[in-house]
Amino acid sequence: MAKLNHSKKTLNNENFEAELQDRVNQAISKISGKSSIIESAISYALVNPGKRVRPLLVYLAADAIGLDLEKVDSLAVASEVIHTYSLVHDDLPCMDDDDLRRGQPTLHKKFTEAHAVLAGDAMQSLAMDLIVNDQNISADQKVKIISFLAKTIGYEGMILGQAYDIEFEDKSVSKDEIIEMNQLKTGMLLEFCIRAPLLLINSRDDNWERLASSVGISFQLIDDLLDLQASEESLGKATRKDIELDKKNFPLTFGIDETQREIEIYENIAIDSLTNLGLNNHPISKYVTELFRRKI
Amino acid sequence: MAKLNHSKKTLNNENFEAELQDRVNQAISKISGKSSIIESAISYALVNPGKRVRPLLVYLAADAIGLDLEKVDSLAVASEVIHTYSLVHDDLPCMDDDDLRRGQPTLHKKFTEAHAVLAGDAMQSLAMDLIVNDQNISADQKVKIISFLAKTIGYEGMILGQAYDIEFEDKSVSKDEIIEMNQLKTGMLLEFCIRAPLLLINSRDDNWERLASSVGISFQLIDDLLDLQASEESLGKATRKDIELDKKNFPLTFGIDETQREIEIYENIAIDSLTNLGLNNHPISKYVTELFRRKI
Repeated sequence: MAKLNHSKKTLNNENFEAELQDRVNQAISKISGKSSIIESAISYALVNPGKRVRPLLVYLAADAIGLDLEKVDSLAVASEVIHTYSLVHDDLPCMDDDDLRRGQPTLHKKFTEAHAVLAGDAMQSLAMDLIVNDQNISADQKVKIISFLAKTIGYEGMILGQAYDIEFEDKSVSKDEIIEMNQLKTGMLLEFCIRAPLLLINSRDDNWERLASSVGISFQLIDDLLDLQASEESLGKATRKDIELDKKNFPLTFGIDETQREIEIYENIAIDSLTNLGLNNHPISKYVTELFRRKI
Repeated sequence: MAKLNHSKKTLNNENFEAELQDRVNQAISKISGKSSIIESAISYALVNPGKRVRPLLVYLAADAIGLDLEKVDSLAVASEVIHTYSLVHDDLPCMDDDDLRRGQPTLHKKFTEAHAVLAGDAMQSLAMDLIVNDQNISADQKVKIISFLAKTIGYEGMILGQAYDIEFEDKSVSKDEIIEMNQLKTGMLLEFCIRAPLLLINSRDDNWERLASSVGISFQLIDDLLDLQASEESLGKATRKDIELDKKNFPLTFGIDETQREIEIYENIAIDSLTNLGLNNHPISKYVTELFRRKI
């Protein structure tokens, strides 16, 4: 691994979360037009009080390796656009059939199913467009990022995970199968967010990779655990719906205790990796710990 | 415009169509795996006896400007993959609700609606992946192509055209509005195919642009005319369905004669442009003329 420059660190532990969310939200408001119904639908999906986990991971990883935040602005916004497109399609009646997302009507309820399909499609192109038209990174860097992103979200990545989610409804599955599904459908995009900034400086490191994969894999475990524990009101989405659909998720299949044990394993790997990277005092450590211990 | 080199012309007027279709089909068979249900669904959609119009336009334009076909292989295949993804989503029950495509069950009939959404999504990423991983073009060329492609298929391009298609169901529309819809939903991708090879040599020319837009805009006019004239059997897709859905297309709204006159205008522009480019004896002229005069 190339020696990383930590001197440019601009973020501090006090207010980084609000500061970065604001940065993402401002960028999103700039790309959120209203000049057609499709633009309105895209804006509806993108402009929301979400936690912006993926862009925050991009910024925190970039800051931790000494990259200026400007270098990863398009990457950060693209990751949120991709995540949002995947939610819009995942909420469709033929998929998870969700009426609510963050307490608001899902896109196909607010507009139509056709507009939800189309807006999701357009968001995927928009993410690519944001990256190739970024003035702050080179053509070589753009090509690397798009190659990594396309694989992350493609038929061997996120989409394969979604297909497993459907396939697993009708069969009994092992722990490894559920973990693999989680890693594909949710983990890979989160991993991308943590690892893509390193691609920009042609660097790689086992600790970063272990951090990325442990955050990625555990994310869905934690979500499913919270979903099982929470009421419909407090989470703003249908609770225990997975039971009706016979969805296979880890806590439903193997119980809450076993899920908590599994999450703890990944948390330990993440914290160990951050320690090895000398990042215990960097905001990324605080943020990753919060992700593992989040209650909503 | 840079002086173009016509000396490398490899195609001849006798067998270019079958030769190029074969080239596309071989490339498609290489990317058509079966190791998951998603790959099988993608293969089902891509492997078919279609005419491969978009890749053929890519190859013919490339050959006409002296580019080796190897330079545009990924572009050619990506254009077909994008076209196929758009058909798969367009056929969905919430969109045009078509059961047949080229005489075969549509993807959501053969698999499920969820798989059709997911396979379409994955095909969009696949097209980008093919371009960024092409060994025959530079990073700068890849960035230009992806930027052009993302705009072509995005919320101001193909997707906007699809949204107009829905919006126009409930209102009376002008000729210009239908032409604009056609240009967006079908024309822009065909234009992309003809113009993208020129991007690779940093060239542009008004005649190429006029050729590209006339082929692009007229394509949907011709399709809609054939659809109105043909029976369900011979065309392999639902005929006169647009009437039921109150779809606004040119022949349905303004009649067959007016449509034929409109097509003739674009054909004359295309032929004039080809003449100006000195391409009357190049296979592209034969192919474009056949496109305008096609009967099925």
